[in-house]
Amino acid sequence: MAESGEIDPGVAGEDPGYLAAVIDLLGVISYGEVTAFERLAEDAKLAPTMQDKMALATMAATELGKVAPLHQRIVELGGDPYEAMAPFGRAIDEFHRHTAPADWPEGLVKAFVGDGLADDFYREIAAFLDPVTRDLVVTSMDEDGGHAVFVVDRVRAVIAADPKVGGRLALWGRRLMGEALTQAQRVAADRDSLTALLTGGVDRPGLDLAALGRMFTRLTERHAARMAELGLDS
Amino acid sequence: MAESGEIDPGVAGEDPGYLAAVIDLLGVISYGEVTAFERLAEDAKLAPTMQDKMALATMAATELGKVAPLHQRIVELGGDPYEAMAPFGRAIDEFHRHTAPADWPEGLVKAFVGDGLADDFYREIAAFLDPVTRDLVVTSMDEDGGHAVFVVDRVRAVIAADPKVGGRLALWGRRLMGEALTQAQRVAADRDSLTALLTGGVDRPGLDLAALGRMFTRLTERHAARMAELGLDS
Repeated sequence: MAESGEIDPGVAGEDPGYLAAVIDLLGVISYGEVTAFERLAEDAKLAPTMQDKMALATMAATELGKVAPLHQRIVELGGDPYEAMAPFGRAIDEFHRHTAPADWPEGLVKAFVGDGLADDFYREIAAFLDPVTRDLVVTSMDEDGGHAVFVVDRVRAVIAADPKVGGRLALWGRRLMGEALTQAQRVAADRDSLTALLTGGVDRPGLDLAALGRMFTRLTERHAARMAELGLDS
Repeated sequence: MAESGEIDPGVAGEDPGYLAAVIDLLGVISYGEVTAFERLAEDAKLAPTMQDKMALATMAATELGKVAPLHQRIVELGGDPYEAMAPFGRAIDEFHRHTAPADWPEGLVKAFVGDGLADDFYREIAAFLDPVTRDLVVTSMDEDGGHAVFVVDRVRAVIAADPKVGGRLALWGRRLMGEALTQAQRVAADRDSLTALLTGGVDRPGLDLAALGRMFTRLTERHAARMAELGLDS
């Protein structure tokens, strides 16, 4: 582990463009986790029982727990965690402002679909990272299994009790995906370094347009699979 | 560790009154921690910087992390965690309803003073518990050192920047103490088993009125010491 301010030897040979991109990426993931904590803690208020509230509160705390190692890696790469997060505040805050759940089932679907989408995207991008950062990103995505089961059970029970809700939640899932893409596009347009991480640089192979298209297809397919798991059309 | 539903051998010889009282106690502490999570997560919204928000959010997650072992102990003692928490919802919810911070410094003082008061009380009552439960209660109180330093630094900085705020926060600290006592009294009046834990039973020594008075004096003295640490009159 590198000391604060001293660049990690594992990425010492990397070009400054790569370092800036990785710090950006860790910054956007960190900010996403902090706001996921805030929103899940907020949405836990909608829970119909204390058991449900505890489950969502525990998901919130799990998201927050991912932030410290991401911040530590930013420091190892010579960055400042709070400066790294700052550029992404607007897009992520807007996403949440536009997707405030109206009730408990919407909150559950958002927790499941939002977290799943973010994880899928980070796993895709992880392929372009140095091994230490890649392991950190992938490991931090793998801790949510138990919570996902809880959400699937609850959403299926809600739909079983009142099948009409399924149609509304299916639309809600589409809106979540649409808002996520809108804000992701904004981030991509604003942050050239992040885009370059995917599309490559002088010495670094990247994705061409066809490969980017395939990645996008994979993300939407996995979103559809998640919606199906909840018993919802996508 | 006992299996669910099978009473822990360490307290198998205890009278049912003791078991009921300990389950009550673990229930009220658990409910207190869940609501502490909720309120700290809510009050984190008042934070002036992302660093401050992270600090309060981390305190919130720490409080939530205490709940699982308390629930586990309730199960070991033959109780149901959610049934055990239920009787205390009203008093603790009322406390928070009456002490919603108006701004960030009030939120900080509440985090520090409220957590401190609760911990002091649980440490006092821990003396009357079986060793396993006592260790659990005392251990769960000892994890907040770093956060306390953060709060003290921030509150002192706020007062240094604007000394008038000190007077308002001193009154606020008194109000927190008053509300806590009001609700504690309500709980004591409602839950004979908890009161009996302190005042003793047929085979169990307890506190007489003079000893209860001394305990109360210790609690208020420690509250005053905490306020002084923040640079506030009590």
